[in-house]
Amino acid sequence: MIEDLRAALGDKAVLTGADCAPWSHDWTGQYDWTPLCVVRPASTQEVSAVMQLAHAAGVAVVPVSGNTGLAGGTRADGAVMLSLDRMNAVRDIRPEARLAVVEAGVILSDLHDAVAAQGLSFPMTFGAKGSARMGGLLATNAGGSNVLRYGNTRDLVLGVEAVLADGRVVDLLSELHKNNTGYDLRHLLIGSEGTLGIITAAVVKLVPAPKAFATAMVALDTVSEALTLLNRLQDVTGGAVEAFEFMPGRYMRAHAETFPEARMPFDELYGVNVLVELGATAPRDVQIGEDGQVPLTAYLEEVLGGLLEEGAVLDAVVASNEAQRSEMWARREAAAELSLAHKPLLIADVAVALDRVETFLDKAGARMAQIDPDFDTMIVSHLGDGNIHYTVWPSEGIDLDEVTETVEDVVLELGGSFSAEHGVGTSKLASMRRRKDPVALDMMRAIKQALDPKGILNPGKVIPS
Amino acid sequence: MIEDLRAALGDKAVLTGADCAPWSHDWTGQYDWTPLCVVRPASTQEVSAVMQLAHAAGVAVVPVSGNTGLAGGTRADGAVMLSLDRMNAVRDIRPEARLAVVEAGVILSDLHDAVAAQGLSFPMTFGAKGSARMGGLLATNAGGSNVLRYGNTRDLVLGVEAVLADGRVVDLLSELHKNNTGYDLRHLLIGSEGTLGIITAAVVKLVPAPKAFATAMVALDTVSEALTLLNRLQDVTGGAVEAFEFMPGRYMRAHAETFPEARMPFDELYGVNVLVELGATAPRDVQIGEDGQVPLTAYLEEVLGGLLEEGAVLDAVVASNEAQRSEMWARREAAAELSLAHKPLLIADVAVALDRVETFLDKAGARMAQIDPDFDTMIVSHLGDGNIHYTVWPSEGIDLDEVTETVEDVVLELGGSFSAEHGVGTSKLASMRRRKDPVALDMMRAIKQALDPKGILNPGKVIPS
Repeated sequence: MIEDLRAALGDKAVLTGADCAPWSHDWTGQYDWTPLCVVRPASTQEVSAVMQLAHAAGVAVVPVSGNTGLAGGTRADGAVMLSLDRMNAVRDIRPEARLAVVEAGVILSDLHDAVAAQGLSFPMTFGAKGSARMGGLLATNAGGSNVLRYGNTRDLVLGVEAVLADGRVVDLLSELHKNNTGYDLRHLLIGSEGTLGIITAAVVKLVPAPKAFATAMVALDTVSEALTLLNRLQDVTGGAVEAFEFMPGRYMRAHAETFPEARMPFDELYGVNVLVELGATAPRDVQIGEDGQVPLTAYLEEVLGGLLEEGAVLDAVVASNEAQRSEMWARREAAAELSLAHKPLLIADVAVALDRVETFLDKAGARMAQIDPDFDTMIVSHLGDGNIHYTVWPSEGIDLDEVTETVEDVVLELGGSFSAEHGVGTSKLASMRRRKDPVALDMMRAIKQALDPKGILNPGKVIPS
Repeated sequence: MIEDLRAALGDKAVLTGADCAPWSHDWTGQYDWTPLCVVRPASTQEVSAVMQLAHAAGVAVVPVSGNTGLAGGTRADGAVMLSLDRMNAVRDIRPEARLAVVEAGVILSDLHDAVAAQGLSFPMTFGAKGSARMGGLLATNAGGSNVLRYGNTRDLVLGVEAVLADGRVVDLLSELHKNNTGYDLRHLLIGSEGTLGIITAAVVKLVPAPKAFATAMVALDTVSEALTLLNRLQDVTGGAVEAFEFMPGRYMRAHAETFPEARMPFDELYGVNVLVELGATAPRDVQIGEDGQVPLTAYLEEVLGGLLEEGAVLDAVVASNEAQRSEMWARREAAAELSLAHKPLLIADVAVALDRVETFLDKAGARMAQIDPDFDTMIVSHLGDGNIHYTVWPSEGIDLDEVTETVEDVVLELGGSFSAEHGVGTSKLASMRRRKDPVALDMMRAIKQALDPKGILNPGKVIPS
């Protein structure tokens, strides 16, 4: 197999032994594995060649791009690991049509930079943007901080190109906003975590880059009052809130301990802290008014002022320059690092309706205390879309799976999801078995069997056995 | 079979013979058929019971809701026709969460009315809104006039419930904006035209109802100048254009001839006429200014004034009240009636990139003239999303399929789609065979076989044999 791969791709593109080290574990240190080899194809045709060889030999193939996942979706013991890092071309940017054609190996922040030069934005963003690659975003239907305004990854994709289990290339690279020509295979491939095909390229939507931001850190009394803030801002601006990120006191404390040189936003440690950002896309929203401010900042200050008088807002800081804004974002984007500081841990990635976030936090905390009176937890939440990253550091001897089930129980009672944006990978297979509609699971198995009858594409992921 | 269906659903819910007449042809009069019977289940459980019986007997089932399709997707010779018209409950409206749970038989305009009472909007709309039902919108991923701002049907759906070929019910009724629990079966079912499952209910997104509209009819010199108008309006308002509908002179003439009592918008008959509508969602956009106007109307008049001076706009009328606005929309929504006035006809439902619409029209006209020098054509276009309804009335003796191929050739040369928003049904099977990526067709066949191995769900539609 390895010889065949070398013949097809050249020696340099096939790594074995110690050379595989960077691809033999995930960045969290939670998972490690020993691949058969790592291949680094440079084109869709080379991906196709790898899959043809693997299909003929019945060898498993695990695609990987940035390897920044949290769900063990790239574990590859004994498999050919197919890295898309060399397919890193932005094939085309068409500003007039507001789209870009990108390969799976493009790093998210590189795409941000490339389109910013045209006054445009690819509005998907999250902490790992400097190393996450588009293939992983597409494979997991990644979320992040701007979903509230712009949707998940799949909502930003017009078309994809993919290589199937047997090496055939399917061309669904549509640039159109209306295109109903049979089943939506694009959406089937997006979010399938490499189990149905390897996405090699995509046509993504771009949006006008916000011409100005109004960003603030706000301390509030309750989560419910935070939602009042969100709704008032959405109403007054007609939906200009780009991000609405909730950090409880425990999170603020962890950040201050880990980064002692970082300034705290407030003199006191409050229980409910929100990072809110408005984005101005219309020229009228960046015209400086008589008060010397752009309108969005004025709106933000007006709404905050009202809530301060009502006693709902306890304190607030509006960023007055880009450095202050960056500081606010750096605090939020340290989330993964803060979570992984202690082990063992469990990061439950759940979602509930916005008006149920507070209930979830109360109930989950109470249930956890029943099974583990001394548990520690750190929460960070994309509150604007109901997504909560619920990190639990249990006491010694507590079974992590019991923790997972406890959190899931509460989520399901509230009509929520046990898997919001990090993907299923291997880490949530037990949850899928327990919680997913059994008819839906059967449909997934039937589709997997139909498209990958030999079961060689990222085996053992997403679908529980 | 019929006796079994009567035993399961009651006699009144199973129609045979002459009682099937309303379900034995489509409203265009282009297709007719003789179903085995028509069943009218009142619940998801009854739909399931029908499918269990049909599955056991190997009898074909064709779902139908409003029967307003244009693509022959409900032809049902010898099949059980499953009408969803009795499943017409809006199960729930949750204004805080901005969602509604609707059954497949809900008429689109009934949903509009139900949510308008809450100050909200379900922004999908098109001419047949008074008779089209949600099941059909979901099955075909319907488009319409507001796609530019709000997306296609699938973009407005959070979750679905469906009955599979063997009668099992799959519950994907998520209310969440982030929910990655395996393959996106929701998007697979939406747009599959009843061939993979019968969608019985959906959770749909609602948006704040625009608090004011600025609507105008604009006469321009060229399509390219119409796009300049669109882009300037989008830039100045930050994307507030709800609809941008193009009606050439031929369309205006057909409308005037068919509705002699309707007023023409302009004294002259211009070549390029556009219906443009801006929607104001933020309070600041409905505050009446010193000029006595709401800001959006002022923006619209300012942009139109500029283009008038530049000679790009030839004439324009801004609606000054709801009656004038309705008159503008009635003209646009008469499109289907105008197209169907003469037979034989072909309605090509195509899409190209916005900046290629003019090229498409030029090329398609020239090619058509080569094969039929005396052809007549009437065009209407959702120009804002590149969708063109290209109606051809060919001369006697001209083969309709040759016309189709001619139009398709031009579309494909321009990277467009031969099927934008009406669905494939039976009318575009030949196009699917000729034009769809063959690997994608194979994937569709494999999925169909996996989920409906007996081939009883809407057989003969979407996938060419």
